[in-house]
Amino acid sequence: MSDINQIRNKIDKITLEMVTMLKARMELAQEIGQIKKTIGKGITDDAREENLREKVISLSKHLGLDEAIASKFLNFLLNESIRTQSDQKQSHLSIFHRAKSLEEEGKKIIHMEVGEPDFSPPKIAGDALGQSYERRFFRYGPVSGMPLFRKALARHVLKKFNVSVGPENILVSPGARFSVFSAITTLLNPGDEMIIIEPAWPAYKDCALHVGIKARTVHTTLKGRWEPSCDQIKKMINANTKMIVLNYPNNPTGKILPDALQDEIMTIAQDNDLYVLSDEIYSEYTYTNWKSILSYNYNKSIVTQSFSKSHAMTGFRIGYAVASSTIIAKMIKIASLCLTNVSEPIQYAAMHALEANIASNTEIIKNRLYALSKKAREMRLEFIEPDGAMYLYAKIGNEGSDGVHLANRLLDRGLAIAPGEGFGDYKNFIRISACQDENILMQGMNILSREIQ
Amino acid sequence: MSDINQIRNKIDKITLEMVTMLKARMELAQEIGQIKKTIGKGITDDAREENLREKVISLSKHLGLDEAIASKFLNFLLNESIRTQSDQKQSHLSIFHRAKSLEEEGKKIIHMEVGEPDFSPPKIAGDALGQSYERRFFRYGPVSGMPLFRKALARHVLKKFNVSVGPENILVSPGARFSVFSAITTLLNPGDEMIIIEPAWPAYKDCALHVGIKARTVHTTLKGRWEPSCDQIKKMINANTKMIVLNYPNNPTGKILPDALQDEIMTIAQDNDLYVLSDEIYSEYTYTNWKSILSYNYNKSIVTQSFSKSHAMTGFRIGYAVASSTIIAKMIKIASLCLTNVSEPIQYAAMHALEANIASNTEIIKNRLYALSKKAREMRLEFIEPDGAMYLYAKIGNEGSDGVHLANRLLDRGLAIAPGEGFGDYKNFIRISACQDENILMQGMNILSREIQ
Repeated sequence: MSDINQIRNKIDKITLEMVTMLKARMELAQEIGQIKKTIGKGITDDAREENLREKVISLSKHLGLDEAIASKFLNFLLNESIRTQSDQKQSHLSIFHRAKSLEEEGKKIIHMEVGEPDFSPPKIAGDALGQSYERRFFRYGPVSGMPLFRKALARHVLKKFNVSVGPENILVSPGARFSVFSAITTLLNPGDEMIIIEPAWPAYKDCALHVGIKARTVHTTLKGRWEPSCDQIKKMINANTKMIVLNYPNNPTGKILPDALQDEIMTIAQDNDLYVLSDEIYSEYTYTNWKSILSYNYNKSIVTQSFSKSHAMTGFRIGYAVASSTIIAKMIKIASLCLTNVSEPIQYAAMHALEANIASNTEIIKNRLYALSKKAREMRLEFIEPDGAMYLYAKIGNEGSDGVHLANRLLDRGLAIAPGEGFGDYKNFIRISACQDENILMQGMNILSREIQ
Repeated sequence: MSDINQIRNKIDKITLEMVTMLKARMELAQEIGQIKKTIGKGITDDAREENLREKVISLSKHLGLDEAIASKFLNFLLNESIRTQSDQKQSHLSIFHRAKSLEEEGKKIIHMEVGEPDFSPPKIAGDALGQSYERRFFRYGPVSGMPLFRKALARHVLKKFNVSVGPENILVSPGARFSVFSAITTLLNPGDEMIIIEPAWPAYKDCALHVGIKARTVHTTLKGRWEPSCDQIKKMINANTKMIVLNYPNNPTGKILPDALQDEIMTIAQDNDLYVLSDEIYSEYTYTNWKSILSYNYNKSIVTQSFSKSHAMTGFRIGYAVASSTIIAKMIKIASLCLTNVSEPIQYAAMHALEANIASNTEIIKNRLYALSKKAREMRLEFIEPDGAMYLYAKIGNEGSDGVHLANRLLDRGLAIAPGEGFGDYKNFIRISACQDENILMQGMNILSREIQ
């Protein structure tokens, strides 16, 4: 017992010394802040942070201290509050919400900002909703999803992607968004890093920020046909890199990677033992060759899927993740903490939606994208023809152009489009969504045309 | 510029020294762990932690270091892994899932472990589900909930609790669980502290752990009629304390606080500028005087509500939070990150459920609790008569008794009950749920009786 007390006294002593050092550290940081204020903007803090992180990692290797703990400790020191601050960026959602408010005031708005198909969900899904009560699908169920539904999803995955999985490889979630959130927050630790290829749906980065994970972005360009450079990816990987996020067909560009490039990225991921989070919610909207990440049979891949786009079931909020049972078991924890389980009537409806023939949805969007592209070419917008998904991602002018200003001006003219900067550092881009009837899309494009001429 | 670099070098040096000390500190802690393993249980760690905290606070006063930061730093050191580890405790949910597996193997199980009413949701909710498709409630909507539904909920709150709120005071969520999660994770910061009165639903503590918030528990006793001591609460409050969680009618004890005591706790909360998270999902099951926390009109209160218990709509996953618009605006952030919005067909169904007469639900549970109490008294179980909710929380024996062992033995006999330790440090308690027909409840109590005699 006295042994314990002796050790405890030592711990207390160390703790108090560390508090003293914390104070000294904060004073020095304040001093830097003061100097910076006087001389204006200083050196980029990112490079400096990197440098310090390397030193800390190297020291902890030397000491035999767990790198993850050391990195977490550093993050604590670098930033007392690691949580997402209110996001100042204008995204497709902020425009959507502004558009909805304008509509409530009686304005007519053409919605070309949001990825919400205008056609209805399969009728069979609606009918199933109606039957769910009588069939008593209204009780608590397993966190990972109804066994019947997970079995049906496993069969669906086999049929669609020719990959054999079982119900234990499926996590049902309220939209793919929650699966993305689960994967990022349960598989990574604060201080870990993940790689995102931009332009990208903002949720990946937002989830990372939320839990103190460092998101590093590979910037791709229109000129480079939205293809990431493998060298760039390789250079970005360090001991803390734990995940790469893929999203093909891509939102917002519509890009599908050439097979060889996708293979190479997968090899890099496997060589570096990275999780591959592949968001494939646009897999029903492919107009050229496309290969699911599931086909690589990589045990650290997580594929997210949704009924929102494929079945136009956005408001149902239902999606799922496919991964190894080990990964699913980890992802379940946060679902259990937040949700208990996913709505049973909704699961029942989605299970029936799997039986619907949705080929016409693909055809409709494909034709609209063709018409949109034709019109955009006439308007001399710069873009690449989408290989998939439901959008055109177009350049509206040179470096100085501002997609946010344009989006706000267009909203006053009755057209909602998504500013490009919601998807990364692309101020002079906009995303045009093909989720309306062709006539309406052309009306929208004419409004856009008048505004940018 | 060279000034800055000099200071930065100093900061780096201090940081690396701190990392070295972190390693030393962890080694000492491991040593203690080893000794403890050898000699069995040691001194309570809580008292020791308190002592160290006092020393740290006193030192930071001396240094002029912000007490809140110092305390947050200490919390970091005391708990390297701030996120939920797999919970080893046997809770009502783990017994529920084991029971479900046994049922799938063909065993017959009496469910007295889970808080899931056996009666059906209002038919009007089922009908509304069926109509939702035709009425096109299947699109994306606002994060905070459908405006129509939030308006209906605001009217409902006025009617039920005589408190005037608007739609801007409502956040619709997939179950009250998500509202609890939102409140704890968006209103508090890592290192902050919150007070939980135990026995309590485990989710409060789990959410706190998940984001690195220190949960301090006020232990109440059967002997003390499950009433917390205000002195104890006051003593627990320090500069980092930001929230107190209330849950009356209480799960698992069924306790409703005497008015004067509840008033006093609210005064303490207001005096100390604490958030009051009041989980009132059992408000429809009250058998004596009960007052909603809403009635205090306290601008830092958050009341969570759900359709799960009141309307037997557990599997629908629908609930809501009522708070100031400032608080709701904060809570929305995590909902937006995780969910986009709550399922529209489900919101539509819940909106209609508000019109249902659910008085008979209250009556049924009240009668069952009466019958359960009578039987429990005959069996000489120690408990207090529940003032509300749907459970008996009973002592199964003296200190040595183990509710987990009992629950597992009972499961083999076909009865599922919840071990008391899922709700705090109550190893010799069990929670008996009144969510079955009276005959079945009596069968269950007879199995229990045979096992504990």
